[in-house]
Amino acid sequence: MRELTVELGERSYPIYIGQGIINQIVAYFDRAKLSRKSPLLIVTDETVAPLHLERVLTLLREGGFAVTACVVPAGETSKSLAQLEGIITAALQAGLDRSSAILALGGGVVGDLAGFAAASFMRGVRFVQIPTTILAHDSSVGGKVAVNHPMAKNIIGAFHQPELVLFDIELLLTLPPREVKAGLSEVIKHGLIWDAEFTQWCADHADELLDLDPDALSYALYIGCKVKSIVVSQDERENDLRAILNLGHTIGHALEAVAGYGELLHGEAIAIGMVGAAKLAQQFGYGEEIHKVTKDMFQKYGLPVRIPAHLDTDSIMSAMTHDKKFKEGTMVYIIPTEIGKVEIRKDVTVHQVREIVELLKEES
Amino acid sequence: MRELTVELGERSYPIYIGQGIINQIVAYFDRAKLSRKSPLLIVTDETVAPLHLERVLTLLREGGFAVTACVVPAGETSKSLAQLEGIITAALQAGLDRSSAILALGGGVVGDLAGFAAASFMRGVRFVQIPTTILAHDSSVGGKVAVNHPMAKNIIGAFHQPELVLFDIELLLTLPPREVKAGLSEVIKHGLIWDAEFTQWCADHADELLDLDPDALSYALYIGCKVKSIVVSQDERENDLRAILNLGHTIGHALEAVAGYGELLHGEAIAIGMVGAAKLAQQFGYGEEIHKVTKDMFQKYGLPVRIPAHLDTDSIMSAMTHDKKFKEGTMVYIIPTEIGKVEIRKDVTVHQVREIVELLKEES
Ligand SMILES: NC(=O)c1ccc[n+]([C@@H]2O[C@H](COP(=O)([O-])OP(=O)(O)OC[C@H]3O[C@@H](n4cnc5c(N)ncnc54)[C@H](O)[C@@H]3O)[C@@H](O)[C@H]2O)c1
Ligand SMILES: NC(=O)c1ccc[n+]([C@@H]2O[C@H](COP(=O)([O-])OP(=O)(O)OC[C@H]3O[C@@H](n4cnc5c(N)ncnc54)[C@H](O)[C@@H]3O)[C@@H](O)[C@H]2O)c1
Ligand SMILES: [Zn+2]
Ligand SMILES: [Zn+2]
Repeated sequence: MRELTVELGERSYPIYIGQGIINQIVAYFDRAKLSRKSPLLIVTDETVAPLHLERVLTLLREGGFAVTACVVPAGETSKSLAQLEGIITAALQAGLDRSSAILALGGGVVGDLAGFAAASFMRGVRFVQIPTTILAHDSSVGGKVAVNHPMAKNIIGAFHQPELVLFDIELLLTLPPREVKAGLSEVIKHGLIWDAEFTQWCADHADELLDLDPDALSYALYIGCKVKSIVVSQDERENDLRAILNLGHTIGHALEAVAGYGELLHGEAIAIGMVGAAKLAQQFGYGEEIHKVTKDMFQKYGLPVRIPAHLDTDSIMSAMTHDKKFKEGTMVYIIPTEIGKVEIRKDVTVHQVREIVELLKEES
Repeated sequence: MRELTVELGERSYPIYIGQGIINQIVAYFDRAKLSRKSPLLIVTDETVAPLHLERVLTLLREGGFAVTACVVPAGETSKSLAQLEGIITAALQAGLDRSSAILALGGGVVGDLAGFAAASFMRGVRFVQIPTTILAHDSSVGGKVAVNHPMAKNIIGAFHQPELVLFDIELLLTLPPREVKAGLSEVIKHGLIWDAEFTQWCADHADELLDLDPDALSYALYIGCKVKSIVVSQDERENDLRAILNLGHTIGHALEAVAGYGELLHGEAIAIGMVGAAKLAQQFGYGEEIHKVTKDMFQKYGLPVRIPAHLDTDSIMSAMTHDKKFKEGTMVYIIPTEIGKVEIRKDVTVHQVREIVELLKEES
């Protein structure tokens, strides 16, 4: 079992990563001083529920916790105010009070949705993350929680840190291969922005990771969480440093929006975006090497590196300029300067980005 | 012009109270360093908009601010996730960014709704309160913002402090008399929980206040805001002390819910609730005087002091036990111990409260 602490003063919290650690959930909850007197609510989705919900419910009930579950449809569309309202209904019906906790059992969608419910129910109750996707190593660290608006992703939300994150890699074994790859895309991102050595390690261990080898996987998730938590500790509210986590996300978000949520997974879209950022780096005079390493890596992991030809450049650009990272003619853009290092540039023009989008359609 | 500061460390903010001070709105915004580069959004309601919106829009535009407005229907039902979504739509259409501010121009409904929009849009943008009701002296101090769920009031919300509160008593002159009285109910509450001298002053100045005499009104609002801000400064997140602000609210909220929102105004319902709390105080051995002063006061202000006979006791009780202040068989209850002082009791039984409800139906 690996453990790390996200350092945020009085909001600090532990992340536990390991195989089969869900079996000790009661001990972890006791360590976090969760109350047996106040009901708990698990939020999960229709795909995860049949796979893992019963086990978690049983463990908690046997441990003396009062717990019920609220199951939402799987997928990004559940990050909505309508589903939020449904969770609040469930919370009220289950009699949750100010000492209760809301638990997210699922991927980033469930984590973001349940987290925003926990942030806003009674103006904030305790929150626990039990991630079931690889991508959720990212979403479960840092306290960003949100739902979407039809016009913009993650636009209605809060900063709400969990009490603990319980990351059992056994729960990941049921993931479809495409979700595995997409999740690893963010793991790789954490290497690219912060840790050259880990980037090399990722290049060397693609097969193990894609096979969900427990040792490789728990190491990779540990480093991924660690990088994210270092960044978040230094800038909880995204005033500056935290922006580096958005490597690949400016183009990535636009691609997701234009493709229609679902056609491109988040991890796939940002893989393309990271290749784009590496190309942009070249235009700013940084070595070709960055682009090569980035692209080779994602190809090794079976992730896309080019923009699907049928996606219209104008639509991509206009999706991007609605993005909150666009401000006053130039864009804030995260660019790799070498492997394991990025910089936040504020002088990238919309025109330059457009060029990159065009180039990314021809990437082979 | 009167000024006071709500002391909350780095979240401290000023409240300005005076006649015609809206004319200096641009100067106040400059003092608060609101940005002219980022659009502002005013949230107001359909009653307030025709009365005061144009003036505020014009002042701000002449001062060089980019500002648009979002108008919601008047009344409690606008404190909903649906209206929240509408405000977010307006914010996106107006191009608000992270440096933007959302302004509440209206009563407590608009303040709570716009405040929650400001708390959650992009995970938090700046917020300004321009209260247009007397009751909003209460809702504009303390940072509690929320919308309702069909099953519970204020259950989805956040703590989000404004940048400033601009309280122009000129805007109050259009208030219907019933709203004036209901608003004064909370002003009186602030005397009853904290300030015996002010309570006496309220008893002596009922006519001036009901006539909206500028001097009396601005003094009363100043003291009301001051008491609330002292309490809030000591307990921003309602861990303990802040609960005293709920004097009269346990029964009050239940009455509002059972009567159907709208039949009893909030200020009316809590006036009855405060008479009830004073009766309960007697049962705990505190002087009869408290009940007499409380009841005389509200009668002088033309506020109700008895529960309408057609409201069913069982329904009132069950509305109350769903209330978040009910916990494990006994209730947390705020009881006056003398004029200007209250205590937080945790040993009041549901049975005792039921008795008070019955008695309050016979109050004459
Ligand atoms: N809050 C943050 O900081 C942050 C960071 C990154 C991403 N996100 C958000 O995370 C979301 C994406 O996360 P995600 O990729 O985990 O999406 P997801 O939660 O939708 O999970 C992907 C799919 O896998 C299924 N699934 C989950 N666990 C499974 C399991 N163990 N076995 C089989 N199937 C399983 C889900 O039902 C879903 O269909 C996006 O909404 C994104 O905005 C948030
Ligand atoms: N956040 C807090 O700490 C807090 C504290 C107390 C109350 N509240 C909330 O405040 C709300 C009640 O506030 P309220 O009484 O101001 O309600 P409100 O905002 O609904 O205003 C009452 C009525 O007066 C009208 N109105 C407002 N200003 C006017 C003006 N200048 N001239 C003519 N008409 C005007 C409104 O359109 C409305 O019809 C409740 O939702 C309550 O939960 C919040
Ligand atoms: Zn991401
Ligand atoms: Zn009140």
